[in-house]
Amino acid sequence: MPIARIQHEIEFCAAFRLAMPGATEEENRSAFGVCFSPHYHGHNYQLKVTLEGEIDPQTGMVMDYAVLAEIMQRRIFQPLDHKNLNEDVPFLEGIIPTSENLCVAFWSELAPEFSLPIRLVELELRESRDNAVVYHGPDHA
Amino acid sequence: MPIARIQHEIEFCAAFRLAMPGATEEENRSAFGVCFSPHYHGHNYQLKVTLEGEIDPQTGMVMDYAVLAEIMQRRIFQPLDHKNLNEDVPFLEGIIPTSENLCVAFWSELAPEFSLPIRLVELELRESRDNAVVYHGPDHA
Amino acid sequence: MPIARIQHEIEFCAAFRLAMPGATEEENRSAFGVCFSPHYHGHNYQLKVTLEGEIDPQTGMVMDYAVLAEIMQRRIFQPLDHKNLNEDVPFLEGIIPTSENLCVAFWSELAPEFSLPIRLVELELRESRDNAVVYHGPDHA
Amino acid sequence: MPIARIQHEIEFCAAFRLAMPGATEEENRSAFGVCFSPHYHGHNYQLKVTLEGEIDPQTGMVMDYAVLAEIMQRRIFQPLDHKNLNEDVPFLEGIIPTSENLCVAFWSELAPEFSLPIRLVELELRESRDNAVVYHGPDHA
Amino acid sequence: MPIARIQHEIEFCAAFRLAMPGATEEENRSAFGVCFSPHYHGHNYQLKVTLEGEIDPQTGMVMDYAVLAEIMQRRIFQPLDHKNLNEDVPFLEGIIPTSENLCVAFWSELAPEFSLPIRLVELELRESRDNAVVYHGPDHA
Amino acid sequence: MPIARIQHEIEFCAAFRLAMPGATEEENRSAFGVCFSPHYHGHNYQLKVTLEGEIDPQTGMVMDYAVLAEIMQRRIFQPLDHKNLNEDVPFLEGIIPTSENLCVAFWSELAPEFSLPIRLVELELRESRDNAVVYHGPDHA
Repeated sequence: MPIARIQHEIEFCAAFRLAMPGATEEENRSAFGVCFSPHYHGHNYQLKVTLEGEIDPQTGMVMDYAVLAEIMQRRIFQPLDHKNLNEDVPFLEGIIPTSENLCVAFWSELAPEFSLPIRLVELELRESRDNAVVYHGPDHA
Repeated sequence: MPIARIQHEIEFCAAFRLAMPGATEEENRSAFGVCFSPHYHGHNYQLKVTLEGEIDPQTGMVMDYAVLAEIMQRRIFQPLDHKNLNEDVPFLEGIIPTSENLCVAFWSELAPEFSLPIRLVELELRESRDNAVVYHGPDHA
Repeated sequence: MPIARIQHEIEFCAAFRLAMPGATEEENRSAFGVCFSPHYHGHNYQLKVTLEGEIDPQTGMVMDYAVLAEIMQRRIFQPLDHKNLNEDVPFLEGIIPTSENLCVAFWSELAPEFSLPIRLVELELRESRDNAVVYHGPDHA
Repeated sequence: MPIARIQHEIEFCAAFRLAMPGATEEENRSAFGVCFSPHYHGHNYQLKVTLEGEIDPQTGMVMDYAVLAEIMQRRIFQPLDHKNLNEDVPFLEGIIPTSENLCVAFWSELAPEFSLPIRLVELELRESRDNAVVYHGPDHA
Repeated sequence: MPIARIQHEIEFCAAFRLAMPGATEEENRSAFGVCFSPHYHGHNYQLKVTLEGEIDPQTGMVMDYAVLAEIMQRRIFQPLDHKNLNEDVPFLEGIIPTSENLCVAFWSELAPEFSLPIRLVELELRESRDNAVVYHGPDHA
Repeated sequence: MPIARIQHEIEFCAAFRLAMPGATEEENRSAFGVCFSPHYHGHNYQLKVTLEGEIDPQTGMVMDYAVLAEIMQRRIFQPLDHKNLNEDVPFLEGIIPTSENLCVAFWSELAPEFSLPIRLVELELRESRDNAVVYHGPDHA
């Protein structure tokens, strides 16, 4: 069976700030610049999820986009949209919400939803017009 | 002299929440839905400013884009980017930071920077992929 | 009260063809070119609706984006998305589904949903990357 | 010689529906949801083709973009634009026109046009703002 | 008959520089900054043309997009694409090629192509991601 | 440590032409078409740089976007923006400025700025809406 990838993208809006626990104000300012801003700032995040799998010979699909969309809605959009990433999201507790760390956390949330021959292969998280993180999972070295 | 319009666009990232002073939680929830989220949320805002004026016969310009860009940087980007719109911006004190109210406040900040024959004619503030406010100033009825 | 405009945008996907009732194949081909293609073609349409109204001094909003979104969902997205514009949409019966005619029909569907001081002032319907129609209503001469 | 990739992108507009031959209405509805809509629906498809090859030391190019554009025009745009993917395209006969299957069929059409050291390495087919398929060819396991 | 607007957009790529005839290097540098760069620079320009007219009751169109596209191709794209705006375009001779002046010149080229009840109402010329000019013609005061 | 990629994107505007030294006008016209246009043409180039590295457990970042942005500003934007790629850029001397060759040259400029565990893994250079080059470095075979 031919292998293909499908991608679905969502937007969510959230507040956050970057600060290292136990670090001084100066260390945090030096590490994070304006992202250490005390009363939070925020983004419209664009998250694109890529799955890889065999094209089902019956349906011609790797997976129905609607199924992938529902998973992303439930696992990411609902817990994060219009929330504070430092305060409101149980699965982000204790995590500095950089886009890199968000991708690692999103992978843990999303990967168990898919089973072979379908697997999660890439997350792209765009936090602003010019800045994005791409993550290929914990097994990518 | 021919009249033309020039437009310049910037992006800024900010946290905020919507709440009416003196209103109950229920009234606020009913008016603002998820935007009443207690620990703030945030956006990448796209602000497009439109000026109208005569094309200078010497230079062929209404105004150098770089001059407009500098004004928007100083008046809007610097006070708002990576800030909390409820807490950190002096000229927004006491204002519910809806996109409508932000436009009215930005107009007050920006309009005095331009003098005839150049005048501010439109602000467009996009707060997410699908939602925007357009404002033509206090004299537009 | 200051007057402002709010805009919300949706995408819907539909099939259609352009043909004049009672016209010969040659006349239709000459009027519509490839859009007269017999077995339909289709588009992802982007519809942007603009409302104008007073900014409510209590809430700071012209209208909650979520209310506008719900109206567009009910009046436009649900009847048209994943449908055939020539066959499946009661309110388009007997109408050649050009973007111009779609805008006129959408206006009739949407306008009654808003009451003063809020009024519908513009529809923009983008049918492809480079082509769009803008409509200001039947009273615009 | 350094190896690089070049990409060219086109848009085409087409109608289609998804249905499995021999399946009941219920099975089709369950597999394809709204895409099983009886009178077709449609999309503006964005197809991005990626080639990989050596940079020619004489010209500094892998291949002239204009040559790639002509091939995509002839092989994909002309047979598919403003057409019905179920009815009008000989090389799609008998194929359920999901984006996955379209990519496999496009690969067969396009790959023979390129010869080493230039080869087709990726197709990306975006069917709507949020949904896309990426395909790396039949040899990608 | 209802009145509507149609828009078509093209991209063209050109080199140019800004300099005032008879001005000193210092005056030019002060007026144009980096745009006075001696060996030219360049842009991908996005030109959007807006026409207004009655919707033809027979065809449901103001004008076939294809007709507008052909006019823009012939009047703008062919003389300007992959050209030098200071050197290669007869109708720009003696004009400082700012976006403002380009719009005025494009208007003169395009307006005679349309006759009532169809008329040219707006040109938008985007010269970079963040900068654009909008022009409503010589009669707009 | 988990491995992730970060991306930052800039736009720069430049003039250039394509011509092979020592080739006849006919040979150049045949190789480059309109890009051989004698008085240059130009583009808004979009350059996206991708780095790969370990996520720092202290900061949660591969590298601060602001650091990457400063490097791209200094190494690419300042020498190239509002310049002529054939005449004004020391590190492009003697190079035919196709997007492929620009990527190879940009790689040489940028790669030395990063040290393990961070490394440059991809450049994407979009020269127009539909055309782009992707480059993975001299070691990619």
